[in-house]
Amino acid sequence: MKFCSECAHPVSLQIPPDDTRPRFVCSNCGTIHYQNPKMVVGSIPVWEHEGETRILLCKRAIEPRLGYWTLPAGFMENNETTEDAARRETEEEAGAKITLHGLFSMINVPHVHQVHLFYRATLLDLDYAAGIESLEVEMFTEAEIPWEDIAFPTVAYTLKAFFSDLKLVQKNDAKFALHTEDIYKPMRSN
Amino acid sequence: MKFCSECAHPVSLQIPPDDTRPRFVCSNCGTIHYQNPKMVVGSIPVWEHEGETRILLCKRAIEPRLGYWTLPAGFMENNETTEDAARRETEEEAGAKITLHGLFSMINVPHVHQVHLFYRATLLDLDYAAGIESLEVEMFTEAEIPWEDIAFPTVAYTLKAFFSDLKLVQKNDAKFALHTEDIYKPMRSN
Repeated sequence: MKFCSECAHPVSLQIPPDDTRPRFVCSNCGTIHYQNPKMVVGSIPVWEHEGETRILLCKRAIEPRLGYWTLPAGFMENNETTEDAARRETEEEAGAKITLHGLFSMINVPHVHQVHLFYRATLLDLDYAAGIESLEVEMFTEAEIPWEDIAFPTVAYTLKAFFSDLKLVQKNDAKFALHTEDIYKPMRSN
Repeated sequence: MKFCSECAHPVSLQIPPDDTRPRFVCSNCGTIHYQNPKMVVGSIPVWEHEGETRILLCKRAIEPRLGYWTLPAGFMENNETTEDAARRETEEEAGAKITLHGLFSMINVPHVHQVHLFYRATLLDLDYAAGIESLEVEMFTEAEIPWEDIAFPTVAYTLKAFFSDLKLVQKNDAKFALHTEDIYKPMRSN
């Protein structure tokens, strides 16, 4: 940020009175331009058929991580809820209609100023199709998931936790739990 | 937003190619200025003594809702995690040191572009003191809580859910659950 978005005067980094952190401050109109983390929200779209559990993944058509696989997810927008965002991103990226269940994972990624949320979801039908930000959309069993080619560590973490919970749920009627994690560095998904 | 923060040229609201929403776009340098929801993160600081459970609340010294009571909470900052934010805000607003437990509530407030998170926490000692954004800091049992003078509906919701869960936990060894809610309008806390 170089200029004030209210009056176009150059801004400078300084610690405002009663604050402890440097902010972009406009010395002309006095506006303090706060910058805060963004939420990335998505779903884990599940399809159960003949005892097999498959998850819908999208192959990214855009950077970062073009060509790598991800759960449908994206930046939450103003005027929507986290559940709205999960449904919208799943529709936009995978053309998929879902029923949302509970919040499954919340992962802090502080070095990129993001918090990632993923909801468990059930696919309502198989009429999915790649949206403009996806090259392909495909369903995978746990064994079929391209673990070496997962786009983001938050997605790899969420998929692993999901299949781990799923085994417990199927064995002894346990419930899915909320998984929280902090990821401080870009990690290879493998 | 009136001017581009990168080049100081006036911005205009338009829907960029491959997008579906109006954004502030700079026709000079091409920057698209996305605006996204912010996270407000805080804690429920608990003190157990002789069978009584008390919660630490802060009386607000700043607008909005100056003079009303709130749980310690505030905007999450870049480079921190949600747990960092909960601890920092509790220290800043109430001078209180806490141990954090699980995430207790996540409440969407879409009309103000916010998501509020509250963590359960245990006060480590009674050396708390009002920070610069608080007029007073005080501990309350459920019966003592000034329900008519709670600053925000997300705080009233969280306090009610906490005491409701607490009774179940004390009676039959249940666990605290994650509570999620969407609040679409400013509500009176009573």
